Amino acid sequence: MAHTSVDEHIAHVRTLLAGAFGGTESVILREALGRTTASAILSPVDLPLFRNSQMDGFAVNTADLADGVTLPIVGEIPAKPMTPAPLERGTTVRIMTGAVVPDGADAIIPVEDTTVTDAVVTIHRGRRSGEFVRDRGSDVHEGDELLPARQQLGSRHLAVLAAAGIGHLDVLAKPRVAVITSGAELIGPGEAPALGQVFDANGTAVIAAVEAAGGSVTYAARVTDDVDLMLAALEAAADVSDVIVTSGGISMGDYEVVREALEPRGARVGHIAMQPGGPQATAVFEGTPVLCFPGNPVSTQISFEVFLAPILREAAGLAPAVRVVHRLEHLVDSVPGKRQFLRGRALPGGRVEIVSGPGSHLVAGLAASDVLVDVPEDVTELQEGDAVECWIL
Amino acid sequence: MAHTSVDEHIAHVRTLLAGAFGGTESVILREALGRTTASAILSPVDLPLFRNSQMDGFAVNTADLADGVTLPIVGEIPAKPMTPAPLERGTTVRIMTGAVVPDGADAIIPVEDTTVTDAVVTIHRGRRSGEFVRDRGSDVHEGDELLPARQQLGSRHLAVLAAAGIGHLDVLAKPRVAVITSGAELIGPGEAPALGQVFDANGTAVIAAVEAAGGSVTYAARVTDDVDLMLAALEAAADVSDVIVTSGGISMGDYEVVREALEPRGARVGHIAMQPGGPQATAVFEGTPVLCFPGNPVSTQISFEVFLAPILREAAGLAPAVRVVHRLEHLVDSVPGKRQFLRGRALPGGRVEIVSGPGSHLVAGLAASDVLVDVPEDVTELQEGDAVECWIL
Repeated sequence: MAHTSVDEHIAHVRTLLAGAFGGTESVILREALGRTTASAILSPVDLPLFRNSQMDGFAVNTADLADGVTLPIVGEIPAKPMTPAPLERGTTVRIMTGAVVPDGADAIIPVEDTTVTDAVVTIHRGRRSGEFVRDRGSDVHEGDELLPARQQLGSRHLAVLAAAGIGHLDVLAKPRVAVITSGAELIGPGEAPALGQVFDANGTAVIAAVEAAGGSVTYAARVTDDVDLMLAALEAAADVSDVIVTSGGISMGDYEVVREALEPRGARVGHIAMQPGGPQATAVFEGTPVLCFPGNPVSTQISFEVFLAPILREAAGLAPAVRVVHRLEHLVDSVPGKRQFLRGRALPGGRVEIVSGPGSHLVAGLAASDVLVDVPEDVTELQEGDAVECWIL
Repeated sequence: MAHTSVDEHIAHVRTLLAGAFGGTESVILREALGRTTASAILSPVDLPLFRNSQMDGFAVNTADLADGVTLPIVGEIPAKPMTPAPLERGTTVRIMTGAVVPDGADAIIPVEDTTVTDAVVTIHRGRRSGEFVRDRGSDVHEGDELLPARQQLGSRHLAVLAAAGIGHLDVLAKPRVAVITSGAELIGPGEAPALGQVFDANGTAVIAAVEAAGGSVTYAARVTDDVDLMLAALEAAADVSDVIVTSGGISMGDYEVVREALEPRGARVGHIAMQPGGPQATAVFEGTPVLCFPGNPVSTQISFEVFLAPILREAAGLAPAVRVVHRLEHLVDSVPGKRQFLRGRALPGGRVEIVSGPGSHLVAGLAASDVLVDVPEDVTELQEGDAVECWIL
């Protein structure tokens, strides 16, 4: 796949991962925040469940009302489980907000429009039939759609489910991702690096990026340059994941453990017209698709954002990451024939500056950025003020 | 606090909660996604840790180079822990990406610019000193700031910490929030409602909203109209939380359990010029501030968004929720003297439509909205095309 374009590789990865994700799981409301409905949810009940009062006040029959009328208070209906007696003509009952409106009453007089003296109430203002009464089903009828399919759930969505007595629901399953970093030079935090060793940034970065994209990391390992260990890790990963991500080990040098493990199993190894992130490979290992990203930490992270994050977000039911057009704060040179993803920072007024050199080892530069500036393959120079597409990180 | 404005109540709540939150906690990187740095983080190391190769190729002394020069290959340096021998003049060594550049070498010749025959390599293209060599510290020097204070952590931020060997860090503690819903009419999901009973939506809604605003729910309870049970819940809540949120039980009717529990303890109970969410109270219970929201589910949720969510987000180090100006799709009437928060849905082209009536029981209408349309107190009518401030949910 020499000279494959970014868009061609995106399409290839999409094809490779078609059908990799899917399924649903049942969660309780308490665990559903941020998840996405698997299907439309219909209401099992009317909401409100029963005709109830919108105010603290007095339940009346409006046929009894005239300005200044006085009615005997013959009872009280609190907001609690009860079946109130029907209201008799020429009488009233106290009623609390949310309480059952008795049969025979057709309006509520707010307490502030009344004067109470012992057991009678004087009503200062008439009301139309239905005022301050919430009818059964006036918000939702049984069978109405409470939420559509593929609704990402915020607190207000969980609230309407709770109001309808729904305690659990089916959501889209999180895409299950295995993360394998490779390299004989890698060590973990807390270890003392010998000359030639580096701290593994890719494991941390990809695991967090998977979670940010709505996925679940079901396997994670760091493997040296031993092919048998890599094969063992791939096997364990394939058992529990929908897609496997590897970093490192795919360039043309020696000791390229991912290539050595996967090339005999039909991996496509090649180069994308892209910087950073040029070397890319894909494979299928025991039925599970594998995306192999290059090992430089900036390359790994940008490969993830370009090739996998959009697919994971879609599978998880999250909205796509936002892309905006900003204007460059300064001149930018770009390598001909390569699509560049430069590290930028958005400035006030819709402008963007580049904050890092192009080196794919510049992890601090990537951390200082908040957008990737997407420079097309055929562009070699951009001027101050030129419009550029920015992928918001 | 009759006729208190929304802004006045916001200010009062800010004063009440000043100093309620704070503190930091130490987390491992794996748990740090989405959290916020408590202070600037300085690098304990240079990055790169050592001078290393940017390419698979040959390490050379550029003083030896001329077009077409042939050099004997006297060794190989993989990317793994090792201290390579210094490069002797007139020789070269194979070197892998990321491997230690030996003393005496000052450039790397990419493998694609060479021809290898047995133990010698012909170099087709000269290189300047320093080309394809990544100097120690060229990304970050020891002591440089890796991340500023109050940086919300995405995967790229965790990556730079991991690259520097940092395995854990101090983040802002999550604001600890207790959630108490009240009402003799409330039942939980799965229960069969008798006439007069309703499913509690507020517990679910506020718990999820706290988490969405970066807080942690440290206590949650549903209390009937029994004052002793409410006092017991408040005590348990005060022990473990920075702020207590209650819903319901603060209006002027009888059986108002929150008011009965807190008014003797100095609660401020009153009415805000706002719809929904007019009735509001605040208190301090055993040293812990209490925000008392009205019990209608839409009132509770909008009260949370207006009065507490911005403060929680700030305390957790999250960016403020976005507010945008949209143009109304149609005419809107508003009650004079009350600031309305109407439920709206954003439309393409920067327009917004209202999707629900004003009733504070219309939970489905709120769930169908994605913005709150903020209509100022003094406005009674808005025309199609008028600009309105929208709070994005």
